[in-house]
Parts: sequence; structure tokens; C-alpha cells
Amino acid sequence: MKQATNYAEYLQINSLLNLQKSLSGSAGVKPCHDETLFIIVHQVYELLFKQILHELDSFVEEFSRPPVSENSLGYLVARLERVTQVEDLFIPLLEILETMSPMDFLEFRTLLVPASGFQSVQFRELEIKLGLYYRKGEKTVAAHVMRALNPEEQAKVSGFLATPSALALVEGWLERMPFIAAEHFDFWHEYEFAVLGMLAEERRLLARHSSQDPAAAQQLLQQWEETQLIFTSLFNADAYGVLQASGQRTLSQKATLGALFIFLYRHEAILHQPYRLLTALLTIDEKLTAWRYRHALMAHRLLGSKVGTGSSSGHQYLQKAAEHSRIFVDLFNLSTFLLPLSQLPKLPANLKKSLNFS
Amino acid sequence: MKQATNYAEYLQINSLLNLQKSLSGSAGVKPCHDETLFIIVHQVYELLFKQILHELDSFVEEFSRPPVSENSLGYLVARLERVTQVEDLFIPLLEILETMSPMDFLEFRTLLVPASGFQSVQFRELEIKLGLYYRKGEKTVAAHVMRALNPEEQAKVSGFLATPSALALVEGWLERMPFIAAEHFDFWHEYEFAVLGMLAEERRLLARHSSQDPAAAQQLLQQWEETQLIFTSLFNADAYGVLQASGQRTLSQKATLGALFIFLYRHEAILHQPYRLLTALLTIDEKLTAWRYRHALMAHRLLGSKVGTGSSSGHQYLQKAAEHSRIFVDLFNLSTFLLPLSQLPKLPANLKKSLNFS
Amino acid sequence: MKQATNYAEYLQINSLLNLQKSLSGSAGVKPCHDETLFIIVHQVYELLFKQILHELDSFVEEFSRPPVSENSLGYLVARLERVTQVEDLFIPLLEILETMSPMDFLEFRTLLVPASGFQSVQFRELEIKLGLYYRKGEKTVAAHVMRALNPEEQAKVSGFLATPSALALVEGWLERMPFIAAEHFDFWHEYEFAVLGMLAEERRLLARHSSQDPAAAQQLLQQWEETQLIFTSLFNADAYGVLQASGQRTLSQKATLGALFIFLYRHEAILHQPYRLLTALLTIDEKLTAWRYRHALMAHRLLGSKVGTGSSSGHQYLQKAAEHSRIFVDLFNLSTFLLPLSQLPKLPANLKKSLNFS
Amino acid sequence: MKQATNYAEYLQINSLLNLQKSLSGSAGVKPCHDETLFIIVHQVYELLFKQILHELDSFVEEFSRPPVSENSLGYLVARLERVTQVEDLFIPLLEILETMSPMDFLEFRTLLVPASGFQSVQFRELEIKLGLYYRKGEKTVAAHVMRALNPEEQAKVSGFLATPSALALVEGWLERMPFIAAEHFDFWHEYEFAVLGMLAEERRLLARHSSQDPAAAQQLLQQWEETQLIFTSLFNADAYGVLQASGQRTLSQKATLGALFIFLYRHEAILHQPYRLLTALLTIDEKLTAWRYRHALMAHRLLGSKVGTGSSSGHQYLQKAAEHSRIFVDLFNLSTFLLPLSQLPKLPANLKKSLNFS
Repeated sequence: MKQATNYAEYLQINSLLNLQKSLSGSAGVKPCHDETLFIIVHQVYELLFKQILHELDSFVEEFSRPPVSENSLGYLVARLERVTQVEDLFIPLLEILETMSPMDFLEFRTLLVPASGFQSVQFRELEIKLGLYYRKGEKTVAAHVMRALNPEEQAKVSGFLATPSALALVEGWLERMPFIAAEHFDFWHEYEFAVLGMLAEERRLLARHSSQDPAAAQQLLQQWEETQLIFTSLFNADAYGVLQASGQRTLSQKATLGALFIFLYRHEAILHQPYRLLTALLTIDEKLTAWRYRHALMAHRLLGSKVGTGSSSGHQYLQKAAEHSRIFVDLFNLSTFLLPLSQLPKLPANLKKSLNFS
Repeated sequence: MKQATNYAEYLQINSLLNLQKSLSGSAGVKPCHDETLFIIVHQVYELLFKQILHELDSFVEEFSRPPVSENSLGYLVARLERVTQVEDLFIPLLEILETMSPMDFLEFRTLLVPASGFQSVQFRELEIKLGLYYRKGEKTVAAHVMRALNPEEQAKVSGFLATPSALALVEGWLERMPFIAAEHFDFWHEYEFAVLGMLAEERRLLARHSSQDPAAAQQLLQQWEETQLIFTSLFNADAYGVLQASGQRTLSQKATLGALFIFLYRHEAILHQPYRLLTALLTIDEKLTAWRYRHALMAHRLLGSKVGTGSSSGHQYLQKAAEHSRIFVDLFNLSTFLLPLSQLPKLPANLKKSLNFS
Repeated sequence: MKQATNYAEYLQINSLLNLQKSLSGSAGVKPCHDETLFIIVHQVYELLFKQILHELDSFVEEFSRPPVSENSLGYLVARLERVTQVEDLFIPLLEILETMSPMDFLEFRTLLVPASGFQSVQFRELEIKLGLYYRKGEKTVAAHVMRALNPEEQAKVSGFLATPSALALVEGWLERMPFIAAEHFDFWHEYEFAVLGMLAEERRLLARHSSQDPAAAQQLLQQWEETQLIFTSLFNADAYGVLQASGQRTLSQKATLGALFIFLYRHEAILHQPYRLLTALLTIDEKLTAWRYRHALMAHRLLGSKVGTGSSSGHQYLQKAAEHSRIFVDLFNLSTFLLPLSQLPKLPANLKKSLNFS
Repeated sequence: MKQATNYAEYLQINSLLNLQKSLSGSAGVKPCHDETLFIIVHQVYELLFKQILHELDSFVEEFSRPPVSENSLGYLVARLERVTQVEDLFIPLLEILETMSPMDFLEFRTLLVPASGFQSVQFRELEIKLGLYYRKGEKTVAAHVMRALNPEEQAKVSGFLATPSALALVEGWLERMPFIAAEHFDFWHEYEFAVLGMLAEERRLLARHSSQDPAAAQQLLQQWEETQLIFTSLFNADAYGVLQASGQRTLSQKATLGALFIFLYRHEAILHQPYRLLTALLTIDEKLTAWRYRHALMAHRLLGSKVGTGSSSGHQYLQKAAEHSRIFVDLFNLSTFLLPLSQLPKLPANLKKSLNFS
């Protein structure tokens, strides 16, 4: 017979509440009041990271065993959406930490040197498992990341590169989508034609509304030309290869077409979950990026232009990192190639047939 | 020379991330995916409770050594306001837990019996330190609370009654306010007169607008009479004693007048922080109450009318508990006796003088 | 050629920003500073109500033309989930309003009499369209609601009863679910058997853990018996009729079985969207209820035990109304009858076949 | 006798709910479902901007009539803190808008050209009244802003430059602080000495921990030298002038010292409200910046690399604008010069005396 369960034992509360040891108080002196806040907020973040990794791992595991069944898509999407809800706590947690004034932080800041959030192994795991290095095409963890870690941590973090990332697995899954097979060539041709029409229309709009300011008009025109170029590359393997080589695109041409098809025909029953899945990944990335940026603002507020405890060069570095650490950028860029419903090519019957319930 | 600090050691990350042991997985079987969520969300709550208790303890300590200096009021208010920000995570955390479906919860629910949130010692500490039992005039912890605990926990929880609660200390602090001293009798007399005028005006409004529905009008009239009665008691020790005896009021007559004065003349510089302090206590209580109610809804959603794991009788019980566990109700009720600025008696010169910076 | 669009004209900004007329300032006197806040917060609520109604109307329209296609389920679910996100602004908006102190409110409160949130026609529309009166089995709008309205508003509000509510339409949709047809009798029989087993197990748990306190044990036993009774009624038209007659259940027996099936077998691809849909309705209701309760706390804070401007009898009334106005209670109660996956009857082949993509 | 007030009339509900005219539906065609969302979300933003401007105007008005009394500081701080709570709705509102998919936006996007959020006069007013142009030392509104507006709007927006901004007024208020007067020269001398000590300590820490990586060490050293330089300038009018001339600082030397004093001695009773005021301004700016950045991410998500409806060059432009539009940067930078309590010079008796209640 099972032993009766006790709340405190089950959740290991006594151990949990015994893990907040202030450095400022160790010398017989009363610890700084706000160091407790500092510790607890960071521990809450680590617990939340663990939860996110738990969801992500189940996603990676399932996507590593193709084909991914319809049934499992249902709960995997729910888990990714749960991740976005967990992320919703990230900025409020920062704002709780910001109730500590810069002066109160100063009281114990030097004791922490050179400890730094840079040393969070779980956060590095999260970045890597989402696909940060896959996106950048790198095979090793960045030197400035490794430098902050001790050898044991370095080994762990490097190890995360061995598992395929969410981004890599999603790419494979998109490439396997049946609707991008060669037999549907005509369909894609029709789509290409429609987008070219839309781009021509945008060109006309630019001409009409930008005439007041020649310099600005010139710049917009140039931007339009880039868009046109990028779009053409979707159907030209060589041109697409150039984009990939320059780091402007990560996902393969085939995977990009797969994602595009899901976005465009998301109303078809069989695409409901795939569309939700891509959207959840977009949102996970977006919230992570917004949090990084917000974190840079907090660093500025707490430290001014002081150097961070982990010797990072402070808030300006952090701010740029927000942009450089985005992972699912290709999904954001997809919107460049969308069409309004009214201009969308009708699906051929054989394709349509495969997209609904029996 | 101080040892260089490492993030993981400082925050005891390895220990922290080792405290999530699923019951559902112990038998060689793969644990239920969502049990991790269940554990982590509860652990985050306990960390947040610890933070709140940390702030509350510093408040209790300072208020236990009167007089409370102007200087310390400043940071104590900031700490109470921080508590309200921590509470802002409570409902979002519940909503994250609710991403677990009732069916997923069922997978491991029976393993938890009879563990229950009822056994959170820190939550009981929080209730007691805020003043739950002081408000109810009880000298012992409620039997249904004790029943859920083991002897060691019972001893701990009973022990919290030994320290004065925030409510009790605030009462003492309010009673010491100089402006309610006997020498200011005339001022209070004038105030009484003004409120009676306002009540008479309300009476007229009732008469004018309620005529359409005699039954409703009758009820409102009765309510008005009660208000009138309660107000009169503010200046009549015997009548006030009756309210206290019946549990309608906790704070002493003197403390109530003190709080009222702070609300009414909050614009005076010396009352800025006292007003913020009372407001923060109100808000702490309000958010706690809203969370309890929301928790009852979650219980209903997860369990239907099933009995809770700790054998509580479920969501209806929890719902009522939200109302019965409010602590600073007297501060909410204060609004009954407020006056618009235009009808507020001018402060006598000697009182006014004491309320500003030199 | 289309006229170029201007932001201010498109959004009618000038008109919008011209709709905030303070009553407190009309007499040549400077208006109360916080009356603007009061007006704007209420106007934002009304805009958000309009948005919610817009989504709800599209749901009602589509569900009024059965059969509801798989394709439309996809976007209808997204719209209901959007409603829950809009509701997430409701409590923060209240908290912004609460930054107005009770004293500041008093400055203009009497000018508002007898205006009241009770007179929000859109809010009544929302309640009615969700199914408040359908749930209560009433054919007319409650007298205390009508009393607050002028004849024109009364006509409008009564008119909303003419359209079928979301609750009524969902009931019909659930009743049409193929898997509750008579041919699946054996399946339901097996399910009944499994739940009875679970209930017996719960009975054993109760016996084991409640022995310390005979009175509490007695109460829990009684509660268990009620659960048993309610469950049995699911398969007994007469017993179920009794529950409906007493107001304990709204949804028909058939619809309840349909919802139960969706909850239990939600992992099957064809049930992904139906499960999300029921969950979204639950959440809409839950957030609305939590907001009503929070609103009652605000009323207490702002008014104490004063009578509301619309002559409602104040916060206690509002608090009870939160519970009485819940609409999808039957969906909350469903959890009573769920089974863990391990005890769930296998789906018969013919049923299973119909639940997946071709 | 006052006319009885009606909710709908008071809040002008009928007019309010009549301001949502879809462009997509004007041609006899059914309007796009999500255009309503687009309109309502923008209208809610405009209402919230109006509320923020209402608070800001009261601040500007009061600060334009020095000296600012202690009493009014109390409610002005509360109003600025209210602004931060209103800003808390900004990102959730964006996220509600993001429930509209890029494809749904495409359906009506071209109809909006060239309308754009760039044309929000209230948002320009907000930027200007906070002090955007004061910080940049510009005397006219930026050309790219003006270009988007019609002549009437241009006149309005230029007009906002005529009123002193919050930033300018706060600078004046800080300069008037008594504790930076010449008679306190010795105190500031002592403070300078203490900070130099702290900087020397930081220098030692850098040397100890950065030895592993010469390049990084070099960079940090350089950053440290800049900090040292900037700090020295606080007490050297010429050096400070150089910082101002290069746009690295906006606030005058005197105002900066005033703000620094408030941060350092915030525990003194008379500085409670000034400290809260500066903190509120910091937070207002921080939340505005975080929202701008988040808005850039949304633009990327909705449009990819398409050109914005107002012909802005899209999300990259918006992202940089977040950084360039920060207004109270000097307050963020203050943290560079703070000292821990333990190293803080004791206040001279004559200064200390003036900082407390009589």
C-alpha cells in the first residue's frame, strides 16, 4: 500500500526554502534585505526555465521520430503554447527585481563578481535547443559564452549541440510536407505569378505616395527591389543559396515553401495544428527577444554604464544581443510573401482532397 | 580574499533543479508529463511566499519597536508595494497550471492523496502574520487547518500566533497618531456633523430615485439606516463595542479614527507615507482575496464536484473561504465614512502645523 | 481611384477624443481631475465589449447554420481564444481605476446618480448572448436589470433574447456529435462501468484518510454519494430530468455525453478543435466570473457599505452575482465524470476510424 | 435640480460605438472580420494616450509654477505612477492585435495606405511633452515625423514644442534643490572622494577577473576609463560641457547633482517623494521604450520585410527608433555614480536638519 503523501515532502519544501543563502550576511553581519529578492527571483527563473525545457524536450523527442502523428501534434502545440504563457511571467519578474533600487543592489553587487546570469546553463540549453547555433550555422558554442563557464559547465553546454534543435527538426518536418512535392509544380507556378502581381501593385502604391520626398522614395524603392529579389529566390535554387550563404535565411528552400503553404492555406482542417505550431514557435521567439531587450534596459537602470558583474560590457551589449539571438527569424520573414485570400490560387483538387478529414 | 562567486553555486542551482521528483514515475514507468508542471508551479508559489514573508517580517519587526520613524516608513511602504507586485504573479501562475487539462491531472491525482495546498505551512504563516486570527478574535488556529498538518507542522503554525500580526501592529500605530488625541475633540465634532449632513443628502437621493420600486426602496432605506447606525458608533464607545462584539469591526475605535484621518487628509505631506501604507495593506488583502476566489474556480474546473486531494469539500468551500479570509476589511469599510473635499472640515491651525515639513 | 487614407479620419480620432465630458466641470468650475479617468476606463471597457461581441456574433452566426465545418472550427476557436485575451485586460483596467482613491471618487460620485454600470447595454448583450438566461431557464430579462434601463434600452436588451445564445447553440452542436448515437451503446456502457470503478476507489480513499474526524468524514461521504447519484443520472433519463428541473444542470443529457466524449478522447485528431472550443468557452466564463468578483471588491473599496450610484445594494450583492452569473457551469462540472487515460475504454474500431484524417 | 444621469448619455456610448467604420466593407462587400479588431485596438490606444496626457498635463502645469509644494508632490507622484500602470496595457494590447494573422491583415492593408500610426498626433504630443526634443536639443519636430502629417496636424504638433516639457521642468526643479547650493561644497568634495575610491576598487576587480582574455580585458578597461572620465566631469564644468555638446548628457551639471543627491539620500523623509518622482519618470520611459521595441517585432511579424502602410521602411527602422527615442536616459546613467550606503558620506548636520519633518 502506498505511503500517504505529504505536501511538504512531495514538493521538498524544506530543502527548497533552505537554498537562499545571502553572501552579504555571511560575516556575522545582517544580510542586505534585498539580496533575498535577488536570489529568489533568479531561482524562480531557473524553475521556469526547467519547465520550458521539459516542454521543449518532449517536442524534440517526438519530432525526432517522424512521421509526427496528427494526434501528437495536438498536445505538442498545447505544450508550446504553454511555453509562451510561462514566458509571460518573465517581464513581470524583471519588474519585481527592479523594485530593488540601484543603491540597494550596490550593497551586495561586488560580492557577486564574477557571477552572472551569463552562467545560467539552463538558459544556454534553452537557446541551443531552440536552435540558436543552427540558425547561425555555427558548430561550436560562442567563445564569450564559454569563457564565463567552468569546465564542467562548458562540457554540459557543448553537449547540448549534439541533440537536434527544434529549428532543425521543424525544418525537416516542413520539408516532408506532401504539398511541396514536385507533382504540385503547377500550383507553385500559379502562386509565384500571383505574388509578382502583388509586388507590382505595391510598386505602384510606392510611386503614388512617395513622390513628395525623393530621397525617401529612393530608399523605399531600393527596399522594394530587395523584396522582389528575395521573393524570386524562393523559386530559384541558386539565388536562394546566395541568401543562405550570406546568413539572410536559415531554413531550406523546401522548408520555406512548406511553411508558406501552411500559412496560406491555414483554414484547411489538416493545417490547423501545423499553423498553430508555427505560430507558437514565432511567439516563443518573440517573447524571448522582447524579454532580452527589457533585460538590457534593466541593466542600464541598475548599473548605468558600470561593467556587469560577469564583466560583460553592459547594457549596450545586451541590447544588441536581443536582435542577434532571434531564432525563428525566417518565420517572421515569411510574411513578405503572403497573399490576400482573394488573390490566392485555388488549390488543385488532388491537393485539396488530402487536406481534410475523411 | 573572497572566493570568486559562481552563479550556480551562489543560487544553488543544482540542488534547486534536483527537487522535482514525480510520484507518477517512481515505479519504472515514465512519469506523467504534466506532473512536472504541477510540482514546479507549486514550488514557485512557495518561493514567492518566502519573499512575501521576508518583506512582512521586516515590517513586523520595525512596527514592533515604536515609534516608527518617518525614514523607515519610506522603505516599509516600498516593501509592501513590492508584495502587491509579487501577488500579481499569483493568478497568471494559476492560469499556467490550468493549461494542464483535468484529464491530465487525473493521471496522477490519486497518488497525491492526502497531500494538499492546505498543508502549506508558509501560506498559513502568511495568513497569521497578516492578522487573520487577530481579525477573528481567535486565540488558536482553526481546527480544519490543524487537522491537515502533522504534529511538527502544527507546532510551527501555532507558533506564528505568538508574534504580533501586521493588523495588530497597525492598530497600535494608528492609536498612537497624535491627531486623535482628546485635545482635538472639536475637530472630530465638526467632522461628525459634516458626515451626518452627507448621510442626510444620500437619504434624499434615495427618496428621489427609488420611488419606482417600493420593495427595493425599502431595502435601500434599511441599508441606509444601518450605515447611519454604524457611523454614529464611531463617536460612541458603547455602540462601537457592540459592532466589535458582533465581529463587524476589528480595529479599535481609536485606530479607526486614526485611519480615517489619514484617508481624509492624505494630501498633507506628513500623511503621504501613512496613506500609502494603508493603501498597500488594502491592496495586499484585495489581491489575496481575488486569488483565493480564482483558485476556487480552478478547483471546480479541475475536479468538478470531486472531493479535493486533501479531503476538502471542494470548490464551494474554497469560494466561501475567499470572503471569510479577508483581513483588512475594516480598511475597506472606511470608505463609508469619507467626505468629499468640499465638505471636509478645515484642520485647526495647531493640527495643521504638525503635518508638514519644517 | 481610392482616396488616400488618413489615420485620424480612418479611426475617427477627433470624434473619439471629444466624447469625454466631465459632469463635475460643467458649472464653470474646474472638473475633478480623476473624472477623466473614470470616463476613459469605462469607454475602454465598452470598446472591448464591442470587440468581444463582434467575435461572439460570428460564432453565433456560424453555429446557427449547421453543420459546422471543420474549416470554420479552426478560426472560430481562434476568435474565442482572442476573447479570453481581451478579458485579460479587464482586471488590470479595474486596477487602473482603483488608483483613484475613494476620496477622489466622492468628489463627483453624487453627480452620477443614478447612472451605473448596470446600465451597460453591451454588457447585458454579452451575458445574454453567452447564454445567461438559457442557463437559468428564464424567458425574460431579470426585473432588477430592466429597472435600471430606460424604455429604449429595455427594448434592445429584451431583443437579445430572440437570438439563440452560444450556450444553446453549443448544446445543439454537441447533441449532433456522431459518437453519441445509439449504435455506440456498448461503448457508453463500458465507460459507465469504468467510472463506477473509479468512484468505488474514491470511496475507499475516503474511508482510509478521513477516519480521524467523524464529522468531516460524514460530510465527505455525503458528498461522495451525491457525486455517485449525479453520475448515475448521466445514463438515466428520469434521474437526469430531476437534475435539470432543480437547476443543477442546463445541458441536455445527450449534449453532456457529447462534451464528455470530447474531453475524454481529445487526443484524437478530429476532436482537437472541439476540445479547444469547449476549453475556450470554459475560460471565457471563468475570466468573466473572476472579474465580477474582483469588481465587487473594488466596489467595497471605493464605497464601503454605501449604496451604489445605481442604487444597487453594493458589494455584497455584486459578490453573490459573480457566482449566480456563471454560464458554462455544466462544463466545469464535467470533470466529475472524467477517467484517467489508463482506465478509459478503448474506442470501438468503427468509432475510432471516424476520428482521424484520411 | 440636476437632471438624472444616464450611463449611456454620460459616457456617450452611442457615439463611441458608432466610430468603427471598416474600409473593407464600404463597397457593399462584407467587411473583413478582423478590421474591427484593428480599429478598436487603435482607438483604445488613443483613449489611453489621452489619459496619459491628462496626467502629464497636470504635472507640467504644477511644475510650471514653482516652488512645487510638498503636498502637491504627493498626488503628482501618484499620477505618474498611474501612467506606468496605463502603460502596462500597451504590450498586452499589441498581443491582442497579433491574434490577427498576417494573412488576415493583408486582406485590408492596402486600403489603409498611406495611413499609419506615425500620424497619431497624441503620440507625438506625448513624446514632445515628455521631452524628446529637449533631450536632443532640437528646436523643430523631425522632418520624417512632419512628412506623415497634414498641415493642420503639423501645426498642432509643432505647437506642442511651445510648452516646457516634463524633462525641462524636472531639470529646473532639480537645479532649485537646496542641497546643491555652494555652501555644501565640502559635502560634494567628500562624495567625489568616495566615488573615486569605488572606481579604484572596480579597477582592481577588473584586473583580477579579466586576465584570461586580454582582448576582452582591454575593452573593459577602456570602458572603465570612460566611466572615470564621465564621473570626473560631474565636478568640472568644462568637461561636463563637452559631454553635453556631444549629446551624451542632457540635464545640466547642477540638475544631475540634484538627482544624484535624491538617489543617494532617498531614505530621508523629505526625499521620499522626490525619489519616487524620479523613479516614476524612469519607469514611464522604460515601459515606453520596451513597447516601441515590441512594436517593431510585431511589424516584422505582420509585414516581414514589406514596407509599412505609411511608407516607413519597416521593422528595422522601428527597432532603432526604440533606442533613439528614450527620454530620461540621464536618469538611467545616474546609477554609474552611486555608492553603497556603507561608503556614503555622512550628511552635514545643517543639511540633515532640513530633510526631516519638524
